[in-house]
Parts: sequence; structure tokens; C-alpha cells
Amino acid sequence: MSINPSWILRSYPSAMPSAENWSLEDRPIPMAANGELVVKTLWLSVDPYMRGRINPAKNYAAGFRIGDVMCGGGIGEVVTSESANFKAGDLVTSDHFGWQPFSAIPATSAKLLQTNDAPIQSALSYLGMPGLTAYFALLKTAIPKVGETVLISAASGAVGQIAGQIARIKGFDPVAVVGSDEKLEWCKELGYRTGVNHRSSTDLAADVANACPKGIDVFIDNTAGPIHDAAMLALNTFGRVVVVGTISLANRFDQPDIGVRHLRRTLITRARIEGFLLDDHEQEYETATADLLSWHKQGLLQTREDVTEGIESVPHAFVRMLKGENFGKQLVKL
Amino acid sequence: MSINPSWILRSYPSAMPSAENWSLEDRPIPMAANGELVVKTLWLSVDPYMRGRINPAKNYAAGFRIGDVMCGGGIGEVVTSESANFKAGDLVTSDHFGWQPFSAIPATSAKLLQTNDAPIQSALSYLGMPGLTAYFALLKTAIPKVGETVLISAASGAVGQIAGQIARIKGFDPVAVVGSDEKLEWCKELGYRTGVNHRSSTDLAADVANACPKGIDVFIDNTAGPIHDAAMLALNTFGRVVVVGTISLANRFDQPDIGVRHLRRTLITRARIEGFLLDDHEQEYETATADLLSWHKQGLLQTREDVTEGIESVPHAFVRMLKGENFGKQLVKL
Repeated sequence: MSINPSWILRSYPSAMPSAENWSLEDRPIPMAANGELVVKTLWLSVDPYMRGRINPAKNYAAGFRIGDVMCGGGIGEVVTSESANFKAGDLVTSDHFGWQPFSAIPATSAKLLQTNDAPIQSALSYLGMPGLTAYFALLKTAIPKVGETVLISAASGAVGQIAGQIARIKGFDPVAVVGSDEKLEWCKELGYRTGVNHRSSTDLAADVANACPKGIDVFIDNTAGPIHDAAMLALNTFGRVVVVGTISLANRFDQPDIGVRHLRRTLITRARIEGFLLDDHEQEYETATADLLSWHKQGLLQTREDVTEGIESVPHAFVRMLKGENFGKQLVKL
Repeated sequence: MSINPSWILRSYPSAMPSAENWSLEDRPIPMAANGELVVKTLWLSVDPYMRGRINPAKNYAAGFRIGDVMCGGGIGEVVTSESANFKAGDLVTSDHFGWQPFSAIPATSAKLLQTNDAPIQSALSYLGMPGLTAYFALLKTAIPKVGETVLISAASGAVGQIAGQIARIKGFDPVAVVGSDEKLEWCKELGYRTGVNHRSSTDLAADVANACPKGIDVFIDNTAGPIHDAAMLALNTFGRVVVVGTISLANRFDQPDIGVRHLRRTLITRARIEGFLLDDHEQEYETATADLLSWHKQGLLQTREDVTEGIESVPHAFVRMLKGENFGKQLVKL
């Protein structure tokens, strides 16, 4: 019987990762060093940003090393604490949860889970990183005006589903780009005015332009790739593009992304294209979380989760999220 | 003997224009309709933006039509005035000068040439559109901090030569990208710390990175194309790229610009890439012109002109400017 089956990174994928890039190996339950907590994992989050770290190249954060236990966002219960700020039994979130049942995490990375009427795993979705990303990318970086058209790619995903609903709450005009008709229907239930299924579209630029008859004022780009190109062609003067994610590049990480470059279009529209990282907004997390929780309590935020179960399923959950096969926030329940 | 030999657009070039795209045809000296001036042309300016208008596709301004007299920036003397604001003998600038000795221009487009100790044609270079472009792109869009590295492409051109000197005056660290060693030497005389000759470079990304050992904080992009790509690879976190011109695309105007797309890099650096058009800054022209003139009077602005003579030379001057064969602001003296 395994004591602490842990997913170890064994190779860097050159394109789309597969379960073979990791091996499940037993590890002892870790001891908490000074300033650390040992936590029992309840939920793990798999997120697009992790693809960027399974790479030897420089990124905004250090990459995972071969032989390391993979780690990411999670929720767990403190088993032992070597920090004055936490005690056994506390429920915490952290971005340092290993892909394993028991992890040692730095206490400084942990946050006590706030009591609210939302299910605890919402701290990994709409009350956590994806929700905050949607909030800041839309309201602090793009800053749409009331009535402006906001195109959102990966619109039913963890970030997109929240971004679309915030856009509706704030009186913007949200338009979805998704990967299936089923996702599109759900986006309309969330409050997206309309949308485009990029997988069934035979002329993405035309379909995006038709869905945005007044042009695109703001584009929340969660994917890069062909959807970005289609959006650029319909961008209005002084349009704002926020580059939140590049998941369409997940299967070509070691190759440059080759395609149409829209610098001329950027000049003509005086567009602003801006890269986004959530960490830059840390000082405002509290305000944003309060807003998100308030919308949740008013029944204004619907969310959808896509849950796999068991530590064995983590790489599978990660890869299906990268491929866009998930429908809603991809989580793993242990 | 021709009365008013005028350059008529005869075809849209699919790539780099050549003199064959125009024909020189005699036209009568125009009459001034109500609200118009007839002006005798003294100087004509040929500028990169005009390439974008010799195109049937939508641009930020209406394109030139086949059969029209070409027009652009110029300086001339008012011959007859049908406007209360101007009288015969006034020296004016306007963007509506035909490529011809005598033009009828809207009085609303004309500005009385300010008396100062600069040569009159400086109203087409450092006291005019290129100087104002450098000023606003650098100081109002990019907004570098003292000591920051500012990479400027087409650095010895009409915009670049002024941008580099403003950067020096303001205490930034300007680095040039130019098309010849001779231009690079001159850029250093202007106050650029160093630079790269992109035509002789065998590894542009490495050469740009070496010239910017602290990375690039601000990139004034006058060219797009491979220089843009090299700059993106050396861009610092929170780097700012101002897309001022896309002259490297002049020979592929009907084809999309295909190449490396740097959206992932934009995300990682949280770069801001912003398109620039001078018209958006019209309300601040007066302040900016006063600054430029003051620097000129203090001897802080050196400039260089590349002058061809005679109406016959206009298409030639335009094409050599597009090819980067000019050295300094390209003008035509009539």
C-alpha cells in the first residue's frame, strides 16, 4: 500500500503533455520543517499556467525540475504546523500543494480558508485565482465602458465563465468564444449575449465579426492563436487586448508561435495589447474577493466545475484541461 | 511647357512601390474655391504613412484613389486666398499639398508658418509631424523613467533622430537600430549610447540584446518586422512597445505579415504594446512644439535632411525613403 503516492515530473513535453511525462511514485509523508505546514490534500487545481512551468526555458516563474513532485493550487487540512499562524485542523489554500495526498508547504504560501456559504473548492475557482484573474483582467487592465463589446475566449473555462458574468453585471456586452455548442449554450445562460464555436467555425474571422456587429472594444484573450487573430481583425479603434493566457500554444511550447502578426492593425486602431499576471494585483485581492463573494451571495455568479477523483487522475485532468476537453473549472477531488 | 506638372496615382503597388505607379501629367493651376487657398509649393515631405494610403484596403485614413493627384505634407506660399484667415504671401504648412507646383488646399488644413530661427523646412521635420511623433510616442505613450533603456528603430530617420535626442535630453538610455554603419556613427553623435546595424547583423536578436545589457524598457518601433521580433526577445518586465510605424511591411502590403508572434512573451513580461497615431495628440501640439523649438534654440537638437530637387523627383524620393536609402528626413525642394 502506498503511503503518499506522488506525481513526479519525468520529462519535459515538447508539445502537448501526456500522462507519460509523470510517474506516480510512493513517497513518505513529509515532516514539517520550521515555517512549514503538512497538509492533507482535499482538492487540487490544474491550471493553464502550469504548462508554462513544465519547460526548461525562462518563464515568469521558475520551471518545475525533472524529478520534482509537481505542485499547484490546492485546498487541504493542516495535519501538523510549524508556524504560529496555523494549527492542526485548519483548512488552507496554497499554490504549493504537491500532486500527492500529503504535502509540506511553506506557511507563508498558505491562506486560511474563509468561512462563507460557497463550497470550499470555490477557493480554487471563482473565489480564487481564476475568479481574481477574470476580475482584474477585465476591471483593472481592460477597463471597459458600459455598453462596450467584450470578447472573451475560453469563455466557459475557469476564467472565462467569471469574466463573462462580471461583464454582464457591469453592463458590458460580453461575447463568447468556446469549443463546443454545448459550452456556447451554457455561456448564453450565464449572460453572454452570443458567441462563436471556434471548432465548428469555417471562417472564424467572419463569425467573430458577425457576433460583434459594433466591433470589439475589449478582448480578454485566454488562448492566443487563431482566435486572437480573428479578434484583432474586428478590433475597434482604441481597443484593448489583455493577454491572460496562451493555452492554444500548449502543444507547440518548444517552437515559436508562427502566424499573422497584427502590428499594422495595432497601429491603425491604436490598440493596446497588454500582458496580464495575477500576482501584480496582490494588494487588491481583498477588495476583489469581497466583490466576488458578494455577487455569489446575490446569486449573480453561476459556476460549473469539471471534477475528476483520486490522485491517480491528476495528469489526466491536467491534460484534458489543456486540450479544452473540460467543461467548467477543472478540479481534482482527493 | 507644363503649367502645373502633377503626379497622378495610376496603380496600387502590390509590394514596394516604384515610380511606375504614378504618371507626371500637366494640370491647370487650380482656382481657390470658397474656404480654399491656392499655394505655390516650396517643399514637399514624403513620409512612411503615405504608403498605407496607396492601398484600396481600409486604413486609419481614406486611401488615395487611382487618378487622383498624390498629396502629403508640404510648405508653400499662398498665391490666392478664399479664406479670411490667410492672405497672399503667407507661408503655410498643410498635409494637403499635392505632388505639384500649385495646389488648392482647404484653409482649415493650413497653418501659418511660425517665425523662428529654424529653416522653414524644419516645419516638415523636427518642428513638424516627425518631431511631434517622436515627442508624443516617447513622452506621452511610452513614458520612460530616467535611466531606462529606450530602443529606437529607424533611429536616424525623421522620427528616430528626434526620439533619440529627446531620450538623451530626458536622461533615458537610447539605443539605435539603423541600416548602415554610417547612420550608426551619426546616431552616436546625436547621443545614442550605442546601436545595431540590422543590415549587417547576422544575429539580430543577439546584437540587440548585447546593445541593451539591462534589457529594453521602452521600444519605439518605427519599422515592425524582424527588428520588432528581436526587441521583443530582450524586453523587460513591464516593457512598453509603441508601434509608430511599420515601414518594413512596405513591400508586402497586400500580404499578411507572417512571422513569430510574441503573445506568450507579452504575457510573461506584462508588456504593453500600443499603436500610435499623432492625430490623437492634437490638443498638445502647442506645448510640444514649444519644447522642440526650445531644445532647438539651446542647440540640443541636431538634424539631418536628405533633399532631392524638383517636382520630377518626388516618387523617387518617396521610394528611397520607403527602402531606407535616405539618411535623415527625406524632403523634396521645389
